[in-house]
Amino acid sequence: MSTLISREIHLASRPQGKPTLDNFALVEATVPVLGPGQVLIRNRFLSVDPYMRGRMKDAESYVPPYRVGEVMDGAAVGEVIESEAPELTAGELVLHSRGWREYAVLEATKVTALRPQAGLSPSVYLGALGVPGLTAYVGVLDIAGMQPGERVFVSSAAGAVGSLAGQIAKLRGASRVIGSAGSAAKVRYLEGLGFDAAFNYQDAPVGESLALAAPDGIDVYFDNVGGDHLAAAIDRLRRGGRVAVCGAISVYNADSPVPGPSNLSLLIGKRLTLRGFLVGDHWNRMPEFVAEMSGWLREGKIRFDETVVDGIEHAADAFLGVLQGDNTGKMIVRLD
Amino acid sequence: MSTLISREIHLASRPQGKPTLDNFALVEATVPVLGPGQVLIRNRFLSVDPYMRGRMKDAESYVPPYRVGEVMDGAAVGEVIESEAPELTAGELVLHSRGWREYAVLEATKVTALRPQAGLSPSVYLGALGVPGLTAYVGVLDIAGMQPGERVFVSSAAGAVGSLAGQIAKLRGASRVIGSAGSAAKVRYLEGLGFDAAFNYQDAPVGESLALAAPDGIDVYFDNVGGDHLAAAIDRLRRGGRVAVCGAISVYNADSPVPGPSNLSLLIGKRLTLRGFLVGDHWNRMPEFVAEMSGWLREGKIRFDETVVDGIEHAADAFLGVLQGDNTGKMIVRLD
Repeated sequence: MSTLISREIHLASRPQGKPTLDNFALVEATVPVLGPGQVLIRNRFLSVDPYMRGRMKDAESYVPPYRVGEVMDGAAVGEVIESEAPELTAGELVLHSRGWREYAVLEATKVTALRPQAGLSPSVYLGALGVPGLTAYVGVLDIAGMQPGERVFVSSAAGAVGSLAGQIAKLRGASRVIGSAGSAAKVRYLEGLGFDAAFNYQDAPVGESLALAAPDGIDVYFDNVGGDHLAAAIDRLRRGGRVAVCGAISVYNADSPVPGPSNLSLLIGKRLTLRGFLVGDHWNRMPEFVAEMSGWLREGKIRFDETVVDGIEHAADAFLGVLQGDNTGKMIVRLD
Repeated sequence: MSTLISREIHLASRPQGKPTLDNFALVEATVPVLGPGQVLIRNRFLSVDPYMRGRMKDAESYVPPYRVGEVMDGAAVGEVIESEAPELTAGELVLHSRGWREYAVLEATKVTALRPQAGLSPSVYLGALGVPGLTAYVGVLDIAGMQPGERVFVSSAAGAVGSLAGQIAKLRGASRVIGSAGSAAKVRYLEGLGFDAAFNYQDAPVGESLALAAPDGIDVYFDNVGGDHLAAAIDRLRRGGRVAVCGAISVYNADSPVPGPSNLSLLIGKRLTLRGFLVGDHWNRMPEFVAEMSGWLREGKIRFDETVVDGIEHAADAFLGVLQGDNTGKMIVRLD
């Protein structure tokens, strides 16, 4: 194969506070020649996720930070176009972690072959059937241990994980599911998804809106936000309530410490549990999750939307959009 | 029996911020005549506990607030001096919840008969063999789920619950137990109890002291304090760490909200769990706890100290002392 050029997004500089386009660079790179056991993948869909903000900081965390001048890796779905590995052949659809570039070369052992789902875009493996879906599933069922009949509150509920968490809770028997989002349009979207109540957190203090939406309190809070949302949830949680702490988008851009909830002492009297989790600890749940979620998708019981941005040259815009809540459902960059 | 007068402590007024002696009143009351099924108890030891501060507020909580002009109930050990109930006879040692008065009349069904422990004061049932002991036991073993080999941090470690929590952790196989307390004398006391490290939280920021005392981090934090201690613990907890949230003495006197830890988003990356609890949910553990703790006490493996104040007229002083940490071990008022 002749020299192949791949456009890719590099971290150009680390952001101070809110990232800007200056922090990213679109770079052309020569795709390396395949070695034994490797495959060449043409990426078709790139995942754009809030957690990537954490990797832009120069701080060790559960995932290593991006390095300045290198590609901002992420999940991607692509097509094998050349293979030096027996287990994968050209034309196969695959999931892997070398996103934010047009072409990826990596070991076949680090790639997951996908089965196309009838009637669904392959990008579903970055969303409902992928990490966001498993995150929602594990958070609601395992971390929060939701039981049928319980009341569930989900923040950032119009996002990829939140919209799935609310629907999974409902399908598994929650008696009431409440969602918060950042616009009137998203509130209508949540109502369309079957949430029993939804509110725009920009309209009034979260505590007031949640009290109106959950007059009898809540048993489970699926937290994507932290901050005021977490404090409001702690106020409204009933005895024995549980919080699945999944994300803290309210503080991702903070350069200085943001004070936490002032009502943590309620954990004692109400016997509350706050439990943080990362989906990476729960891959063992993937088979059961895929089986159940595939069924729900086939039967039209779960609705999963995407906000699609075309072209790798707009990946940074898409990412900045996720951080300010421009997306409804999963943010995807499509390369075609 | 002729008219019997009992001195008792009333809540005279609700405190604003730190309570003062003006909030309490010593009152003489006539002891009522016994009805069928009731017993008359002469109290010998009154329990003085930090949680009572919460009951002085006019706010519904897991225990009802004290009413102004009424007795500040609490745990007590006394002796039956008259009985109209077949199950109890004069001379028996009992545990009950009508403390802060010299004489109590109540239904025999609400009283627990005690077996005197050789060599131990009957007040041990208000401490090591009572609610503080069970609280420490359940918090370390059930709520935090401490495993042998783990590193444990206990705040307010020279108090009744904390000193037991640290010793129970050690006896159950913790590899390192660290305690914080509010004076140099208490730090020495903790070292004498077998804590591997102890620091005075007034000497330096808690985070700095804890980092020095726990260079390899901690797995379990037994929280009696909240505030800076909780934030420091979250910083030092290792992956999968657990916090048993037992008390929040740092905020009990606050009239306005005290900001919580600014590092709660670490719950996610480190997969931490914060779990609040009340000992009242765990009475089912009492038999196992009493068996194990009695053995430890008999064998001299657990040391349990009391700060004893004589006379009901000094109960309010004793309580104010607990809130500012004057006690080492359990604060007791002795009536003799």
